[in-house]
Amino acid sequence: MLNQLRLIRVVSILSSSPRSINIAAPSISINKLPSNIRPTRSQLLMGSSSYTTSSHSSKLLFRQLFEKESSTYTYLLADVSHPDKPALLVDPVDKTADRDFALVKELGLKLIYAINTHVHADHVTGTGLIKTKDPSVKSVISKSSNAKADLFVEPGDKIYFGDLFLEVRATPGHTVGCVTYVTGEGPDQPQPRMAFTGDALLIRGCGRTDFQVSCLVEVQRCFTSLCIHRQDTNKFIFTLPKDTFVYPAHDYKGFTVSTVGEEMVYNPRLTKDLETFKGIMENLKLAYPKMMDMAVPANMVCGLQDVDGIAKAC
Amino acid sequence: MLNQLRLIRVVSILSSSPRSINIAAPSISINKLPSNIRPTRSQLLMGSSSYTTSSHSSKLLFRQLFEKESSTYTYLLADVSHPDKPALLVDPVDKTADRDFALVKELGLKLIYAINTHVHADHVTGTGLIKTKDPSVKSVISKSSNAKADLFVEPGDKIYFGDLFLEVRATPGHTVGCVTYVTGEGPDQPQPRMAFTGDALLIRGCGRTDFQVSCLVEVQRCFTSLCIHRQDTNKFIFTLPKDTFVYPAHDYKGFTVSTVGEEMVYNPRLTKDLETFKGIMENLKLAYPKMMDMAVPANMVCGLQDVDGIAKAC
Repeated sequence: MLNQLRLIRVVSILSSSPRSINIAAPSISINKLPSNIRPTRSQLLMGSSSYTTSSHSSKLLFRQLFEKESSTYTYLLADVSHPDKPALLVDPVDKTADRDFALVKELGLKLIYAINTHVHADHVTGTGLIKTKDPSVKSVISKSSNAKADLFVEPGDKIYFGDLFLEVRATPGHTVGCVTYVTGEGPDQPQPRMAFTGDALLIRGCGRTDFQVSCLVEVQRCFTSLCIHRQDTNKFIFTLPKDTFVYPAHDYKGFTVSTVGEEMVYNPRLTKDLETFKGIMENLKLAYPKMMDMAVPANMVCGLQDVDGIAKAC
Repeated sequence: MLNQLRLIRVVSILSSSPRSINIAAPSISINKLPSNIRPTRSQLLMGSSSYTTSSHSSKLLFRQLFEKESSTYTYLLADVSHPDKPALLVDPVDKTADRDFALVKELGLKLIYAINTHVHADHVTGTGLIKTKDPSVKSVISKSSNAKADLFVEPGDKIYFGDLFLEVRATPGHTVGCVTYVTGEGPDQPQPRMAFTGDALLIRGCGRTDFQVSCLVEVQRCFTSLCIHRQDTNKFIFTLPKDTFVYPAHDYKGFTVSTVGEEMVYNPRLTKDLETFKGIMENLKLAYPKMMDMAVPANMVCGLQDVDGIAKAC
């Protein structure tokens, strides 16, 4: 495990790709910019390629998959220009693990990683089940999640599959260990970029911040991880190019994708100032997640707490 | 109405775009080709750009939207390089018409067409509701559907939105009036192409053929509209480039997209010979569609049969 972890880090260090974020972010909310320098809606939304579905890269195979009961999106990505066609799944669900595994096989891909954005509270991850089908698949989650996995990632790490990679960004708040995986920056990487935001940034929303470790008092941390308030901007989402596609872990209204530019303008929570945002998040009065008591312990061990011996291997 | 219909046709005639299909299709099923000339799975699936999500065109805005109750996909397409940002919706649903209309407004688009692939039996179209919100929107359906609409299209017609267009292909069988809308061929059109197949071709399936006008005895017609058996190949789906994306009107397993190449290999119905296929379709023993008695009459008049006077305008 350590060797493989090191491999990810070494690749990250050796990569000569420039950082994706090299523009200092303003220290105030976009809504507080003086009107004469505030970007217009069209400037934010209508970049020449803002709305193409994806990707000028002919290397990337990309599939969005849906689990209806928990309204969860799973994402399949592969580098089909690489001889091995290495692939990864982001946020697989236990109930659809068979479907996802079958699709990987049909498409002739080699699944190498099953990755979670965080420890989910509303469904059980399919990571462990996928590993029982193919033990060579490595589970990946953030180190800060404190969950079990084969590989732990930290902000700034790059997860390579073939010549493509995902960059890890810290986006805590919904849980302390939430990360966003962003496709790489560079001429050989997909354009526009794609951000797999988990529950941190949802389409016209964001994940609740009232449960799991220490989040109750970390609303500000949540907020700053999504917005453009912090100086350490390269960790966050709204500092990405505006045409970056936002692919969340869930949608409950039938949206499949948004863009950073759209969410900067239309997200009803994250466009607010900090105090208003905190007020919204502290007064959502959401029901206790019905799956939480089962899902969270299971997801700490790849979704396989009830399978003898398997959890050890996740 | 006639003037606008003529406009579509005139544009179609004037267009110098080459036809997308200019290769004679074999007269036998792909499964019956001699093994030495049968394309391999990798040849069918692994074109260099087979799996990119979409589109090398920076003009196309594309959104896939989902209505959970009927598992219906609605598609929003727009030419964002055109000053007016003209847009169209394919297969809008009444229950999500507000969502779709709001999204169009947020994105700064000008909706010009609300298009149906056929007269649906499982949900009520949102076309009429959208027209009540913006009477300048024109409803479009195939002439062979016998439904009401502002504009009727026939195979070979091109529906322009800005500099982009959809080509109309006849794909009868699920209903006699089913058509598939395919993005255009040409250097300025999205690559790979995208086929909005309605219920004619589903991902790893196809629409039932046991109800609505004359379809009970038209299984063969259905089959030939989807496969590569007929000489008049430019009407059909499997004659499209293998990397063409297949976007169906429904999916019940959480798939969002497939490709022509994939369905040629893995579709469990359409890869069969004609007799086997007929046997499958005639023995599905599906329940009578619970929405049919309400949805079909409504969808013959843009989904608005219960709104006084509105049906006349659809």
